[in-house]
Amino acid sequence: MSNINEITRQIKTDSFQMSLLDGEVRNRALASIEKALQEKKDLIFEANDTDLKNAAAAKLATPIVKRLKFDDQKLSDVISGIQSLITLKDPLWSDLLIRELDSDLTLHKVTCPIGVIGVIFESRPDALIQIATLCLKSGNCAILKGGSEAATTNKVLFEIIHEAGVTAGVPAGFLTLIENRAEIDELLTCHDTIDLLIPRGSNEFVQYIMSHSKIPVMGHADGVCHIYADETAEIEKAVSIIVDSKTQYVAACNTVETLLVHRTAAAQLLPSLKNVLDEKMVAIRGCEETRKIIECEAASEADFGKEYLDYILSVKIIDSLEEAIFHINKYGSHHTDSIITENRDSAAKFMLLVDSAGVYHNCSTRFADGYRYGLGAEVGISTGKLHARGPVGLEGLVTYKYKLYGNGQIVGDYAEGKKSFHFKDL
Amino acid sequence: MSNINEITRQIKTDSFQMSLLDGEVRNRALASIEKALQEKKDLIFEANDTDLKNAAAAKLATPIVKRLKFDDQKLSDVISGIQSLITLKDPLWSDLLIRELDSDLTLHKVTCPIGVIGVIFESRPDALIQIATLCLKSGNCAILKGGSEAATTNKVLFEIIHEAGVTAGVPAGFLTLIENRAEIDELLTCHDTIDLLIPRGSNEFVQYIMSHSKIPVMGHADGVCHIYADETAEIEKAVSIIVDSKTQYVAACNTVETLLVHRTAAAQLLPSLKNVLDEKMVAIRGCEETRKIIECEAASEADFGKEYLDYILSVKIIDSLEEAIFHINKYGSHHTDSIITENRDSAAKFMLLVDSAGVYHNCSTRFADGYRYGLGAEVGISTGKLHARGPVGLEGLVTYKYKLYGNGQIVGDYAEGKKSFHFKDL
Repeated sequence: MSNINEITRQIKTDSFQMSLLDGEVRNRALASIEKALQEKKDLIFEANDTDLKNAAAAKLATPIVKRLKFDDQKLSDVISGIQSLITLKDPLWSDLLIRELDSDLTLHKVTCPIGVIGVIFESRPDALIQIATLCLKSGNCAILKGGSEAATTNKVLFEIIHEAGVTAGVPAGFLTLIENRAEIDELLTCHDTIDLLIPRGSNEFVQYIMSHSKIPVMGHADGVCHIYADETAEIEKAVSIIVDSKTQYVAACNTVETLLVHRTAAAQLLPSLKNVLDEKMVAIRGCEETRKIIECEAASEADFGKEYLDYILSVKIIDSLEEAIFHINKYGSHHTDSIITENRDSAAKFMLLVDSAGVYHNCSTRFADGYRYGLGAEVGISTGKLHARGPVGLEGLVTYKYKLYGNGQIVGDYAEGKKSFHFKDL
Repeated sequence: MSNINEITRQIKTDSFQMSLLDGEVRNRALASIEKALQEKKDLIFEANDTDLKNAAAAKLATPIVKRLKFDDQKLSDVISGIQSLITLKDPLWSDLLIRELDSDLTLHKVTCPIGVIGVIFESRPDALIQIATLCLKSGNCAILKGGSEAATTNKVLFEIIHEAGVTAGVPAGFLTLIENRAEIDELLTCHDTIDLLIPRGSNEFVQYIMSHSKIPVMGHADGVCHIYADETAEIEKAVSIIVDSKTQYVAACNTVETLLVHRTAAAQLLPSLKNVLDEKMVAIRGCEETRKIIECEAASEADFGKEYLDYILSVKIIDSLEEAIFHINKYGSHHTDSIITENRDSAAKFMLLVDSAGVYHNCSTRFADGYRYGLGAEVGISTGKLHARGPVGLEGLVTYKYKLYGNGQIVGDYAEGKKSFHFKDL
């Protein structure tokens, strides 16, 4: 038996002990973690310096270095995240339904933890803290694997969080750090002990995980977001939203990749937009019609449906709202898509028929985020349709079970008509 | 491109049209279907006679023939099912959350259909009607493949339901019947167009589906249900519940397969139980300790965790509640498990720590069923922990999307502190 297999079996056992912890104990552990992170921040910054030096030596790209950096500002952000997590209502053991099936036979649909969750995430050390604390608050055990660039920082963060949690009375298996890439493949075979995988990373990586494991996967492979500027789009509003959606954080999954413009809006919108995008160094790749209005590179078929994660925007002129919806459902990744229009009916139709986790009217695609939705934080964003969709916060980390309380009832009596159900919701 | 691939692409397009239908139209279609089934019942019974004759010629086992039979009683059951489905609240377009993120920036979390659902089910023609009508009520398109033994009945039922639905204004793609086993393999590759698979059938078959498709799967492979008779179990109650759980319908997934008995209850319980099980022709396979108390075959390790689907019950004597919980979490299939005890604390601990969709106190495992839970009907029972768990009714057939209504808001303003969120739930 492999090492990881044994480890996850022990974590599974600990996950049942997690179920026995009061919400108060979980909150107390969160408070201890918050305190420990503050007290030991010099250790964290020191470790982060090592990672940053290694990154500089390896000449890693600026966006990666920016994500890797863990400073006072990022510490203060995660601290306030933990504080607000403590104030949030316990997501466990709520009755979603209480139904009397018959006298003395009562069904409760009760929220409970999912169990053991594996999260594989990118090179942001703050992500480790967010994921660990969200899983703790929701009574789940987390197995984490972070980006190798952040290995030194992650190890120190893990040790601080783990020690603080265990000291506060949480079972040791509540948090496990995997440091070796090869161990991920072992993890994928542990469908008896791991209940859910949340992979964050490249499309290729997420597809790999989905194809190589029977464990359910939540997350997204791609973030191909669209903006559609309708006939009645206000030009100034449209330019501002498009520029924010493209440039506010170019490497995010909720960044816009393709702009669709209704033919009647194009002549006015595109030149104004180009002026601002030029300043921001965004390259436009336009369809033939677009190139009759503004100067830009030609878009090929491959440009549509592509996640650039870069200062590039593809632009296509279209003839109708229906064409926009069809294009987005065909080329998009069901993440987040926005319509800019002053026509409420068009907005309503777009928001009904675009098959995405987020459908927006007159605002930036960059709002697709757990914090901005008021969920506290997120473990990831799901483009799947089952369980949780869009940013996944605490609610997405719980499931439910049915508890049925009886007093000797048997089904035979109901099948033979001796008794009958009366279904009364309490 | 394969035929099935093209067909599912068209169904996907129709699924968006389904989204545009009012709840009233869907209900009207359900009423038409109900009427058509009544009017054309002779056609259905005639087709069913053909299937029954073929079954007799092929010498199929009695339980299969029983499931295959579609008579006045079964028609009347499905008719009343459709009638109650019509009265149920529309599961679509409910606001699960309305949150003002900032003034003029409002987030709605709204229920919506999943889209296209593939259901592969066993030889019960009534299942076809239940699944088709549940999917219609919830605005989903259904692709159905039934057991080959029921092919003639299924074809007639499909034609009646499809015609009635389309005449009532539902897009043709709302229901598709697949008649060829080979087409299932093509279906498994259609992850771009099919949103969810619900396989009902043998463990082997469900495992095959899970391993050969990227489409999310909801359902259960096994139904290995347990009853644990605790120290304080009342003997008469226990015998009645165990016998019902084993024999009320022996081929069901919620039938008990293993009985765990606390050592102190065994000497009293087992002889009484054996008397009744002998009458019902149930064979007991007991552990060594069991065989010191009653005469029975010896259970091997392979008997625990086995779904007999037959008149066989494995029995094991154990020493504690903890051992029962450990045994069930190890050998069970996370379906439904019941404790028989007069001790409320033991019941609470059992129901907290047994990791199953249904955890019962003093009642039969056979209650695990959509109809008996008051869900109207079910498309299946899920032992997974994501999305829907236990019997899956209408609620399990919907997902949600986030709609965000703005007026030009961009994330840059919030990142730079020019604006801030105020998160107010409306």
